[in-house]
Amino acid sequence: MNTDKADLIVIGAGISGLHAAGLLKQQGKSVVLLEARDRVGGRSMNHEFANGDLVDVGGQWIGPGHDRMYALVKQHGLKTYPLYNRGMNLLRFKQSLGEYSGTIPRLNPVHLMQLGWLLWRFDRLASSVNPAAPYEHQHATKWDAMTVQAWMNRNSFSEPARVAFAIGIKAVFTVEPKEISMLHALFYARSGRSLDCLISVDGGAQQDRIHGGTQGICQAIADGLAGELRLNHPVKQVQHKLEGVTVSCANGERFSARKLIFAIPPNQLLRIGFEPALPGSKDQMWQRMPAGSCIKCVAQYEKPFWRARGLSGQSVGLDSELLVNVTFDNTEKGKTAGLLMGFIEGDNARLWGQRSDAARKQAVLTCFARYFGDEALSPIDYVDKDWTSEEWTRGCYAANFGVGAWTGFGHHLTTPVGAIHFAGTETASEWYGYFEGALQAAERAVNEILSHS
Amino acid sequence: MNTDKADLIVIGAGISGLHAAGLLKQQGKSVVLLEARDRVGGRSMNHEFANGDLVDVGGQWIGPGHDRMYALVKQHGLKTYPLYNRGMNLLRFKQSLGEYSGTIPRLNPVHLMQLGWLLWRFDRLASSVNPAAPYEHQHATKWDAMTVQAWMNRNSFSEPARVAFAIGIKAVFTVEPKEISMLHALFYARSGRSLDCLISVDGGAQQDRIHGGTQGICQAIADGLAGELRLNHPVKQVQHKLEGVTVSCANGERFSARKLIFAIPPNQLLRIGFEPALPGSKDQMWQRMPAGSCIKCVAQYEKPFWRARGLSGQSVGLDSELLVNVTFDNTEKGKTAGLLMGFIEGDNARLWGQRSDAARKQAVLTCFARYFGDEALSPIDYVDKDWTSEEWTRGCYAANFGVGAWTGFGHHLTTPVGAIHFAGTETASEWYGYFEGALQAAERAVNEILSHS
Repeated sequence: MNTDKADLIVIGAGISGLHAAGLLKQQGKSVVLLEARDRVGGRSMNHEFANGDLVDVGGQWIGPGHDRMYALVKQHGLKTYPLYNRGMNLLRFKQSLGEYSGTIPRLNPVHLMQLGWLLWRFDRLASSVNPAAPYEHQHATKWDAMTVQAWMNRNSFSEPARVAFAIGIKAVFTVEPKEISMLHALFYARSGRSLDCLISVDGGAQQDRIHGGTQGICQAIADGLAGELRLNHPVKQVQHKLEGVTVSCANGERFSARKLIFAIPPNQLLRIGFEPALPGSKDQMWQRMPAGSCIKCVAQYEKPFWRARGLSGQSVGLDSELLVNVTFDNTEKGKTAGLLMGFIEGDNARLWGQRSDAARKQAVLTCFARYFGDEALSPIDYVDKDWTSEEWTRGCYAANFGVGAWTGFGHHLTTPVGAIHFAGTETASEWYGYFEGALQAAERAVNEILSHS
Repeated sequence: MNTDKADLIVIGAGISGLHAAGLLKQQGKSVVLLEARDRVGGRSMNHEFANGDLVDVGGQWIGPGHDRMYALVKQHGLKTYPLYNRGMNLLRFKQSLGEYSGTIPRLNPVHLMQLGWLLWRFDRLASSVNPAAPYEHQHATKWDAMTVQAWMNRNSFSEPARVAFAIGIKAVFTVEPKEISMLHALFYARSGRSLDCLISVDGGAQQDRIHGGTQGICQAIADGLAGELRLNHPVKQVQHKLEGVTVSCANGERFSARKLIFAIPPNQLLRIGFEPALPGSKDQMWQRMPAGSCIKCVAQYEKPFWRARGLSGQSVGLDSELLVNVTFDNTEKGKTAGLLMGFIEGDNARLWGQRSDAARKQAVLTCFARYFGDEALSPIDYVDKDWTSEEWTRGCYAANFGVGAWTGFGHHLTTPVGAIHFAGTETASEWYGYFEGALQAAERAVNEILSHS
């Protein structure tokens, strides 16, 4: 069988792999970019509604500090617009609705003070963590043996404050506070400035959208890689030694190169065969980095009807029967039809991912109606995307280190194995879990290779 | 390409898969048993020393309650013998040695009382857990949001007691107390009677060995399945619908059947391709069941020299520089040469798995010498086995549910997906993680199939 040769192979045409391949090509390297799917973008993905409007069903936001992302947007002639953030936000609590403005829902003063304390205290701890080496912190061992839930329980006696804080955690990590290491949560927040930044709209990680969807950036980079990109090429096996690699795809095609960059999530790395087998410490680290559980739900209405009532479309619901705890006005600026968006996260995602599409749609709309009234029951279109059932992703937004994993394995998160290097947002020390982190990781991996060649 | 047909396919010829295939054959079913390796046994494996003696480098013990295992031993004409358990045990603490008898090392009374309290309290909690549905316990949510380390910290002020308890946890789970959900630890202990039972020799899970090694049982079952067993057949892809499955192996061979039983660890299930893709909840559950980290080390001496000094060969070391915290006299009854055995577990396994074979051997022997004196530095042979680097296992003894995983996913641990059923010790409700659990799980999966056919 023929084996195509190149200087470098990149596996995974999400934004990290695309960026890495693009940078290597700019340096005059010959590159092959292998992608399992029939599309680029990875966890960035467009959906087209019946009326032709597009919406991101994957990652969608950029905000201050995402310098690489804004630069890419500009470079490819794309445009951003701010998330609609005018009017009042809604809080649903004990079956009744209240309005508030800003990021923090208006609970009664005792609970509000407790919530403020949790947020302040969390970010104070996070600010002391070095995101390039969280395991070196003097309290790393203690925090890595503690879940965020356990930390919350010890730091607040207010049940509503804990529920509200948990909703923030779920919105950022897409898992329950019981599932994540406190050290990982602190690292993650610090890598994206602060938890306050990660849950904020204006000035925060939810500030801006990209016209045409984030997949537009991926497609624009891919357009410049027409000769390098191979879609529908799931990689099954990697033979490797110090001098180079040979990669075998499901369709039997083989590619060889001096170096290889993986830009796929940890759980997907587990599914590649390696010859010789990788060191136990790499494999076991990836076993301890499960992906989050998230279903993104978007309802399309004739118009954004909530705006006329002075509402922003943003809401937070603390009651346990609400399967969507946070909503946003996801309308693309300039479009007539209005979009409400919400996430089903953590244990709810596991539950509702097993239900029928129709039952889930009904439940989501019923939930939207609890925030925005019966008009929310009659969308003109609807889409949801369960990322846990996507074969080539198996969970969103990102992987979270389990308890004990940062202190047990974190020191070799990015360490190459011979000719194999690692990119992807789960290897980022800045903006881990975000597009920006995917780009930072790509640049780090490319630098590793260029500085040694 | 030809496709071989059978009533049933079993994947994985560890003791669970072998037992399942044997039972199905007894019922007159045609069975194909596919195994990736060139041997049967899975996590049961013999090593032959230069002098021809055999030793288990995988799982080795059986004890009271392992009724299926004792029955198999008898059925195949094999014989058990008790672990050598005469003489005094050693405790190494603050660089000095003390002797004690029984399971619990002799610390000073304050620490000893605290250790007793931790063990008693843990087993009291464990006894309240239903091992068939641990997530239903009234405190399941609380315990699943807590690591064993956090529980220890709250229940003992004695550092030596916590270190001693942690050594027990590491010996049972092969991970650090920071890494496991308290609910999982309680479930696991309860599924094997009690933690006290799991750390005990006489009357406990370390009571008996099998002459010729546990792999002898596996080989004996395999001898009865000569027509069914296919070694060197790693499974790559499973096409499945309600009516049946087609399985494709790395060598291109295909097999089809009405039903399929997987008897491989969770991390290995992640590496199989499914068409259609499995539900997100299954895949994400397995992502949250990382395998333990364990290197088993055995030194062979001309004779068991410690016995003449009135020592049992059992020792416990609390000092942090000891990479092996627990040792046993692993000598097979009737052999002249003596064996000392110890495990490197958790973070130490990750560290020492990356060192050279020679460096690790030297460190282990130095550690043995700290317990048993300089005679331990001069073995006639030595072997160690790092199960995290074994491609078809990737960790031992078993998988542990991460925090939040039992309550988020546990209710469908054993649920079949169409024609696909699940065995293996990680699906057992009795003796999870043990050979006995592997047999119980096999019988449960076989019953699922026979009761519906």
